[in-house]
Amino acid sequence: MYKAEKIAKLYSGLQLRICDHLAKADVDHTFISDKWEKEIGSGLTCVFQNGNVIEKGAVNFSFVRGIYSPAMESLLNEKAEEYAATGISSILHPRNPHMPIIHMNIRYFELDNGTHWFGGGIDLTPHYIDTSEAKFFHQTLEKICNTYHPDFYSDFKKLADDYFFLPHRNETRGIGGIFFDRLKPGLEINFEQLLDFTLSLGKAYPEIYGQIIRNKANIPYSEKEKQWQELRRGRYVEFNLIYDRGTKFGLESKGNTESILVSMPATASWEYNYQPPDDSPEKITHDLLRKGIDWINF
Amino acid sequence: MYKAEKIAKLYSGLQLRICDHLAKADVDHTFISDKWEKEIGSGLTCVFQNGNVIEKGAVNFSFVRGIYSPAMESLLNEKAEEYAATGISSILHPRNPHMPIIHMNIRYFELDNGTHWFGGGIDLTPHYIDTSEAKFFHQTLEKICNTYHPDFYSDFKKLADDYFFLPHRNETRGIGGIFFDRLKPGLEINFEQLLDFTLSLGKAYPEIYGQIIRNKANIPYSEKEKQWQELRRGRYVEFNLIYDRGTKFGLESKGNTESILVSMPATASWEYNYQPPDDSPEKITHDLLRKGIDWINF
Repeated sequence: MYKAEKIAKLYSGLQLRICDHLAKADVDHTFISDKWEKEIGSGLTCVFQNGNVIEKGAVNFSFVRGIYSPAMESLLNEKAEEYAATGISSILHPRNPHMPIIHMNIRYFELDNGTHWFGGGIDLTPHYIDTSEAKFFHQTLEKICNTYHPDFYSDFKKLADDYFFLPHRNETRGIGGIFFDRLKPGLEINFEQLLDFTLSLGKAYPEIYGQIIRNKANIPYSEKEKQWQELRRGRYVEFNLIYDRGTKFGLESKGNTESILVSMPATASWEYNYQPPDDSPEKITHDLLRKGIDWINF
Repeated sequence: MYKAEKIAKLYSGLQLRICDHLAKADVDHTFISDKWEKEIGSGLTCVFQNGNVIEKGAVNFSFVRGIYSPAMESLLNEKAEEYAATGISSILHPRNPHMPIIHMNIRYFELDNGTHWFGGGIDLTPHYIDTSEAKFFHQTLEKICNTYHPDFYSDFKKLADDYFFLPHRNETRGIGGIFFDRLKPGLEINFEQLLDFTLSLGKAYPEIYGQIIRNKANIPYSEKEKQWQELRRGRYVEFNLIYDRGTKFGLESKGNTESILVSMPATASWEYNYQPPDDSPEKITHDLLRKGIDWINF
């Protein structure tokens, strides 16, 4: 284990920077910090609850290490004795249905056989899709990606479309973003550059959401719009509990349940066979929950 | 395939009987019936929504058949070419937090190699545990079980405790009930008796809930009690989406998503690290969410 500790320190510092930035962007918001320690490792969970803008959200940092299990071996197809992993993950659920849910994760994984890689991504789940916001969001990600590798944006945008997808609903979770996993240093990009890529994403994350807060937090909304938000949050819950690999890995590896499930919205709802009316904003959003949309040139 | 069709007819008739009984027990409630057909089979979903007593619930019938897949083979450890399955499943979420959520399922599974079995169960998930209700519930199940086999209640009660359990919360879903799977005819009990056992459970189900409705539907409740109900519903969602085999099997086998996820409550909520105050009714309930409690002699 040679680099995990160093990266854990960088990620831990970045977590606090993200929290400060978000607390300033959300008027008068404070967050609570919970340090946890378990056999598997330790972490700090920063929770935003009942804010003016962010109804529920969190920025998690963790650093875990342990015995490399047979389950991990069959998942990762690598032989090793021990592993270490560190990362930041964050989800923000806004109060206002005109604002999107946002999610960001950066992580580093290391095996004692010398193998190591980065993973992560940022994606946006609007309750109401706003095409100019979608363009701004994807352009921002494209710009960051292009600083590091010309293929990153197009490759990772496609991976996000595939990953943030609910097969049982045949719909994407939202408008995607970027997603990458097992990204290893190689001829075209070295370790320091990959680390810097993940740090850049982490830094951009509160700036992106800060911009969305300034644009949207004061838009009035109706009870009907709030109800639609609740239904969309139900879909978010479905994704996270059924498909999300981070949630699965966390719960199966006996991680800290409260900090894993802090990604759940404050409230959510389900209605049997709800179909939004033709031509409604809800129906327009629903029909755009598809893979492969080029949001930059939409 | 020799018996699945006959049993599907019996289950289909029982479904309607259950719905009628529940509609009468819940004052002025009507339910909607949705017939669905997919490649895999067909079914009828009867949905109770926005009733006086039942806020959201459903009684599902389905009859599916198809090619026995490698995934099924590795799950069931049986060699076959085709399978057929039929069953009823129901979940009821009451409006009143003093009433429990109830769940019932009976099912029959058949392979073209001649192997066939029954599965099912009934379990209760109170928002507030009422020990006399728990006693009545378990006594009723014990009485039915004893008609068929002296070991059924104790064996299936234990299986329910193990099955309706959330490892990541280290708590049971509720006060359990009975649960059984792959129950095959043998020397001690024949096919007709097993079928009759499942039919008896299906018939008892609306009677049990009808009794609970008469006892509890008019108990006044506070906003605070309603909030606790929402949190407990959040746990119910966690169980169903993360662990429930029926939900998993349904979604993976491309069943009818709306009829599978009709088990979700109308609303649910999550709060980071919520701890009920010492000696509160919420804390008392929480502390009783343990395996192995003998509710009949509690």
